[in-house]
Amino acid sequence: MITISLNPDSKEPMYQQIYEYIKKEILSGRLSHPDKLPSARSLANFLQVSRSTVDTAYDQLVAEGYVEPKEKRGYFVNSMTHIQNFTPVSPVPITKAYQPKHESSEKESAGRMHFDFNPDAVDTTHFPYSIWKSIGKNELDNSDNFVAGNHFGETELRKSIAAYLHGSRGVQCTPEQIILGAGLDHLLQMLCVLFQRKKTVAMENPGYRSARKVLLASGYTVRDIPLKNNTFDLTSLNQSDADICYVTPTHQFPLGTVMPVPVRQALLTWAIEQKGRYIIEDDHDSEFRYVGRPIPALQSLDTSGNVIYIGTFSKAISPALRVGYMVLPPVLLEQYQAICGSFSCPVSRINQAILTKFIKDGYFEKHLNRMRKLYKSKHDFMVSCIREFFPKETFRISGDNAGLYVLLHYLGNETAEQIEKRAEKNDIKLYSLKKYYASLPAGFHPTYLLGFANVTDENIRTGLHLLAKEVFLLP
Amino acid sequence: MITISLNPDSKEPMYQQIYEYIKKEILSGRLSHPDKLPSARSLANFLQVSRSTVDTAYDQLVAEGYVEPKEKRGYFVNSMTHIQNFTPVSPVPITKAYQPKHESSEKESAGRMHFDFNPDAVDTTHFPYSIWKSIGKNELDNSDNFVAGNHFGETELRKSIAAYLHGSRGVQCTPEQIILGAGLDHLLQMLCVLFQRKKTVAMENPGYRSARKVLLASGYTVRDIPLKNNTFDLTSLNQSDADICYVTPTHQFPLGTVMPVPVRQALLTWAIEQKGRYIIEDDHDSEFRYVGRPIPALQSLDTSGNVIYIGTFSKAISPALRVGYMVLPPVLLEQYQAICGSFSCPVSRINQAILTKFIKDGYFEKHLNRMRKLYKSKHDFMVSCIREFFPKETFRISGDNAGLYVLLHYLGNETAEQIEKRAEKNDIKLYSLKKYYASLPAGFHPTYLLGFANVTDENIRTGLHLLAKEVFLLP
Repeated sequence: MITISLNPDSKEPMYQQIYEYIKKEILSGRLSHPDKLPSARSLANFLQVSRSTVDTAYDQLVAEGYVEPKEKRGYFVNSMTHIQNFTPVSPVPITKAYQPKHESSEKESAGRMHFDFNPDAVDTTHFPYSIWKSIGKNELDNSDNFVAGNHFGETELRKSIAAYLHGSRGVQCTPEQIILGAGLDHLLQMLCVLFQRKKTVAMENPGYRSARKVLLASGYTVRDIPLKNNTFDLTSLNQSDADICYVTPTHQFPLGTVMPVPVRQALLTWAIEQKGRYIIEDDHDSEFRYVGRPIPALQSLDTSGNVIYIGTFSKAISPALRVGYMVLPPVLLEQYQAICGSFSCPVSRINQAILTKFIKDGYFEKHLNRMRKLYKSKHDFMVSCIREFFPKETFRISGDNAGLYVLLHYLGNETAEQIEKRAEKNDIKLYSLKKYYASLPAGFHPTYLLGFANVTDENIRTGLHLLAKEVFLLP
Repeated sequence: MITISLNPDSKEPMYQQIYEYIKKEILSGRLSHPDKLPSARSLANFLQVSRSTVDTAYDQLVAEGYVEPKEKRGYFVNSMTHIQNFTPVSPVPITKAYQPKHESSEKESAGRMHFDFNPDAVDTTHFPYSIWKSIGKNELDNSDNFVAGNHFGETELRKSIAAYLHGSRGVQCTPEQIILGAGLDHLLQMLCVLFQRKKTVAMENPGYRSARKVLLASGYTVRDIPLKNNTFDLTSLNQSDADICYVTPTHQFPLGTVMPVPVRQALLTWAIEQKGRYIIEDDHDSEFRYVGRPIPALQSLDTSGNVIYIGTFSKAISPALRVGYMVLPPVLLEQYQAICGSFSCPVSRINQAILTKFIKDGYFEKHLNRMRKLYKSKHDFMVSCIREFFPKETFRISGDNAGLYVLLHYLGNETAEQIEKRAEKNDIKLYSLKKYYASLPAGFHPTYLLGFANVTDENIRTGLHLLAKEVFLLP
């Protein structure tokens, strides 16, 4: 008979105590195949519990495969040949507290500096939260939003995006060509799956490092193409073995320049010269241009279906929304359908529904117009402060007139190390252009990206003044 | 001089008409390098518009690289050598309406049958929408939710998930080991990137086809391991060249069986026998078990860090939420950090924040308990209807006691074709077990997954009655 010390005062029900005890006996080998368990009736008698309590414990042991019931003969311990010699080869304590190095947001915000000119930040104070909330309330009443959705993204949202892209970016596409994703990283990953064969990708140097990391992680080869006169160097591209070209034509990241039309045409020519060549157009913050008309997307010039256009709502709404989209040329769309058609769309339907209504009812356009004005005024203010505090002889501004940051080039004699050390001491977070380079060009001068989107005017002025006086030691 | 027929009544501003005209002239080659544009002053005079109108048009042409300003000499058309011979190699009309074959939800719902026993569906009527909404309202007031977040998922949510997994699934992990993702597809894709080298994966046959497709799309090799006595066949696994094993131990999908502890132990032994072997545990609908205690996760037995545990909120809350997570063993976590650390978490922060509060404040557990009761009653009702309408001699039930569907095995003489044709005619959507097989075993009988989660009791009874009388032609 099995002696179990049952504790009737325990929070654990009696049947569970019996189950746990027998389970432990089996796992330790004290009970082993083909041992027979006492009959439920006799064990119940012995332990002075109800028959059904033992039955429940036995049922659970059967369900998990510890014991096997044999008709009319009772319960037998299962054969577990592997348990006795189950010694871990290289035991790793699972409970060991592991602290990933990249616990980004929380860590960063904990140690956030007072003057943080983050070029990736967006303004979070002027978003029409109340409108978003009221749309959200309605959409939560629609139970359709809780049923598995379209794998490419809901049709209504794709229609709204197609209309927006056509109107404001000149992009030529049908809603069917649009695939919704969880931002640039995710869409690039999908492309890496779509192409099947590992590709060689030409990327701008300097360029968008996160995209580069996704491509490398997916086993792709990256060729870093230098920028010549601040634009993509086609000679280098033509000499490379790349079959994909990743560019930011409307607003080069991070230099902020526009790819001139002749270069765009040459790039499209490169793509059609050989079968299977594609251009990935990352149109990251094209919404914000403060001078003249918007620059049309490269895709708008593409008549051969060689451009894959990628956009997101990260800058226009928020990077925390995690919604992006790509426009696939028809040939790739068919391929995508065949290879990735069964993958679920990563964006929650409720967020898709809110976003659809937000665009359709004109709130998105209103928000964009408002933010464009606001960012322009911040941009102009930052440029005027720079002009006021930093002499033209040793400081050059570039990448202005668009986007959410400007570049400050320093032509003086202080070293980057000195500058950055002093900045930290003065509680100023600087973002160096250096880190966007795969390899630094000769004669590189210390250059910093100064983001203004989420900095108050007061902090722009005070921070830049501090930067001039205490970091660059200007009189 | 340039003759532009300006339309002062057009909605297009004058400067844009000038810009469009000159742009067209350049793209067509009628104006070409090194043509000089008329001076802004003289063109303004000629066209009888203000000087600033022409300036704006010229600035835009310069910004996009059509023309180049030369100091004191005027504006010159840029060299576009590639434009003249720019003839598409194989023109694909981009505007051609392409209709992907897989426009799932909308299409399906349009042609939805009256009795749809979808095994993947969840109940959408009993979700506590009002609670979710009121949490959502509060979280939308927190602007932190609009700032880019932690790449692995927000710490608070990972803490809540770790506590839940420990309490209800016996999973041993720290919050740091949890990586948030957009559901199973996405997490599997991340794993495929993480492993870098293409792996060979042993999968259950029958098994979860979507996972199989993700692995194949990522270039992995899949070995289909037959189930023996409804559980994973270890002999086949040991004879295969697999280094990853993908299993659904708690509730085999689609057969609904529990992997017995001896098989679990043997599987863990297989994993530690060779370096680099891993088990992917897909714990897809473990929340819903109607008899006895929950079956602990395979991961709870793993002492060597060989099990990657994957779970989602698709069954417990909604597949449209797109939130899942994986628990990585420490070794893989370090690798993940190095390779995928820069990838953004695909789940919107607002959804993470709502979910965190929903779990922390006990609503998730309450919802689960409520749904477990509800599903159990639907499950029992469906089983009782089957028992009532279908004779035991020719119909067997399996996969009961857990999950959101039961299996109905038909041992009679009607063919699957006859059955499915008649079902369609009677407006009954049947889900055949057949489609979950990579290869059908000998002596396979027509078997159907009958989901009950999102079917009313009335429809369960009426549908099953119809199925018995009109499809299986029972008296």
